[in-house]
Amino acid sequence: MTILTQAEFDGRVLKAQAALAKTELDAVLVFSTESEPAGVRYFSDYWPSFETAGVLIPRSGAAALIIGPESLTFATSRSKLANVVQTMDFRESSQPDYPGSTHPDWKKILSSFGIRKLGISGFHMFPYTIMMNIAEALGGMQNISNADALLRPVYMKKSALELECLRKSARISELGFKAVLEHIKPGMTEAELCGIATEAMLSGGAEATGYPVWCCSGPNSDQAISRPTLRKVGTGEIIHFSIGAKVEGYSSSIGRPVVLGKCPEELRCFMQVGLDALNMTFDSMRAGVSAADVAKKVHGYIIDKGYGDAILYGPAHGCGQMECEYPFLETSSDYVLEENMTFMGDVFLHRNQTGFRWEDGLIVRAEGPAEELSSYGRQLNIIE
Amino acid sequence: MTILTQAEFDGRVLKAQAALAKTELDAVLVFSTESEPAGVRYFSDYWPSFETAGVLIPRSGAAALIIGPESLTFATSRSKLANVVQTMDFRESSQPDYPGSTHPDWKKILSSFGIRKLGISGFHMFPYTIMMNIAEALGGMQNISNADALLRPVYMKKSALELECLRKSARISELGFKAVLEHIKPGMTEAELCGIATEAMLSGGAEATGYPVWCCSGPNSDQAISRPTLRKVGTGEIIHFSIGAKVEGYSSSIGRPVVLGKCPEELRCFMQVGLDALNMTFDSMRAGVSAADVAKKVHGYIIDKGYGDAILYGPAHGCGQMECEYPFLETSSDYVLEENMTFMGDVFLHRNQTGFRWEDGLIVRAEGPAEELSSYGRQLNIIE
Repeated sequence: MTILTQAEFDGRVLKAQAALAKTELDAVLVFSTESEPAGVRYFSDYWPSFETAGVLIPRSGAAALIIGPESLTFATSRSKLANVVQTMDFRESSQPDYPGSTHPDWKKILSSFGIRKLGISGFHMFPYTIMMNIAEALGGMQNISNADALLRPVYMKKSALELECLRKSARISELGFKAVLEHIKPGMTEAELCGIATEAMLSGGAEATGYPVWCCSGPNSDQAISRPTLRKVGTGEIIHFSIGAKVEGYSSSIGRPVVLGKCPEELRCFMQVGLDALNMTFDSMRAGVSAADVAKKVHGYIIDKGYGDAILYGPAHGCGQMECEYPFLETSSDYVLEENMTFMGDVFLHRNQTGFRWEDGLIVRAEGPAEELSSYGRQLNIIE
Repeated sequence: MTILTQAEFDGRVLKAQAALAKTELDAVLVFSTESEPAGVRYFSDYWPSFETAGVLIPRSGAAALIIGPESLTFATSRSKLANVVQTMDFRESSQPDYPGSTHPDWKKILSSFGIRKLGISGFHMFPYTIMMNIAEALGGMQNISNADALLRPVYMKKSALELECLRKSARISELGFKAVLEHIKPGMTEAELCGIATEAMLSGGAEATGYPVWCCSGPNSDQAISRPTLRKVGTGEIIHFSIGAKVEGYSSSIGRPVVLGKCPEELRCFMQVGLDALNMTFDSMRAGVSAADVAKKVHGYIIDKGYGDAILYGPAHGCGQMECEYPFLETSSDYVLEENMTFMGDVFLHRNQTGFRWEDGLIVRAEGPAEELSSYGRQLNIIE
């Protein structure tokens, strides 16, 4: 039934251990939260809700999933790691006491693995209080380091099964946008339209949305990141959708503007420049090409067309377990595209309280143009 | 249209400043994330997605909303605080560069408010890296302290308008569960049923779900925290729902087990004990009563009925902007219930891969029994 196998997860731990072998670290602790589940999901298939979680990967031997006090049955039902440990530090933000609980502290957990030097992945969001508890257990911060760069090469080039998850995510995201196109009418709220897309994706095989999907319309359309409101969508305005399904932990997305009724010529031209810029991004994303060169070319095109002021960020970003994950593709990027790196081509432009996103996923191929995860409805969707 | 007013938000900042006046702090920084949006939403009405955010409240004068590089139009469209500042430390986890951006660092932000001593709320989840950046700006960790306890009294007793938001959240959560009862059939997936509930709530006036809602069935039903899977629900098994709507930032929830077809007598008895325990919780939650006494009474009842081993946590927890927020109600609790504190009565029991949650919101009244936010479908829902 599922795409990902136990062997896939076993292989991921081995890849992390191969990276660890080149360091002086005894282990890496991968940290995740409800809204940033990527690392823990990657190694264990578990993703927390309410609580936080970690995966502890020693230099050799079995990795352990570390969870909070309330998720034992939830975590064991999903975890591909047999060893599941509970600790109070990963409890929820309401900070329950759980009187009588005897979960081990970091000293006990880390010493049971013989860990003296620890790398932490998800370092930028790792809580200060837990860091201090671990530092105390290990005798000081000098025994803790940032392991984000260590694991990025493990995450960045996707396996054949990961690519299958992303392809399926894109197909189900299309169902969400299709349902919107079928049901959208003036007077519906942004939130209602997101509900329709969500229902279609969940009945179509998604385990969840890939992120809090949004619809933003009229003056809200200029929001690069957004959340739906109770505003009613109208005619002659941009109604812009970001819709993505999660499949076995993998999230892609579809970004599309829609116009109901007559479309003012000015909006049509603006949207067309964005659409052309996304197509140019797709044409340019090839193995061996400099990421910065792609960004410069696409931004150059947008600037030439007179919309330079409408640019907020680069025309693509990594995708995988997070719909938006490292690396971004910007004019300042310093890497070269490689086979099986996966991106969302993502052209967001905004000006004068009007904006839109054109977005689709892609897989960099060894040769030739990238594989498009979707092109469904990648056209001016003007519904008269 | 909305329940909450600008005056409500202005009053919240003043309440925080009244608390600050009793300390030596120059300001408090309230931190929030996509999945833990409560504090920032409380003071600003903004809640982040992809990025993180903070609200900086000085001892006097206007508070500021601090956001990441990509959310300016999103944040300003929602913020009740006029002063919106961007900083790179609140960017998203993909860590884009935003080449050419000139957002201020902490030294610049904090010195513009004349801040030398800072309290942090949301301390338990505040990232280590940002803490170090702030410590450097302020000359060391000795100038930073945990302000969670400072703001809890501000959050805990709800205003009349907050109560209205919670009442509306409960009414819309009912629409979610009602849609489930109308559509549920053996063979539907857990995720599909969550999609139906979500669509009903979003078309019924919710701005979002209050948390990632779940349905867990059969062997999954013993999960206290869960996420829906693609498992197909069947007959004669517990199918347990946690469904909650978010209204202007406020989240309540409805927890209900459902059985399709004939219900084994053993399951019926087990569910009835939980239902009686939730009703007992509601009867006991009165102003002036010790929280620990309520927990002891309810747990005593469950133990007497022979299900002591099925208890995981106390029978209620605070609710408000988070469906589950401080304080929990446990046998170890050390506080007394007060008027306008709001809770979710939450009885979760599990044993032998079978479990369920009965959950409804309540408002503690000055006198007499609590106001129930909902009792819709709080009965054995056996659909033969």
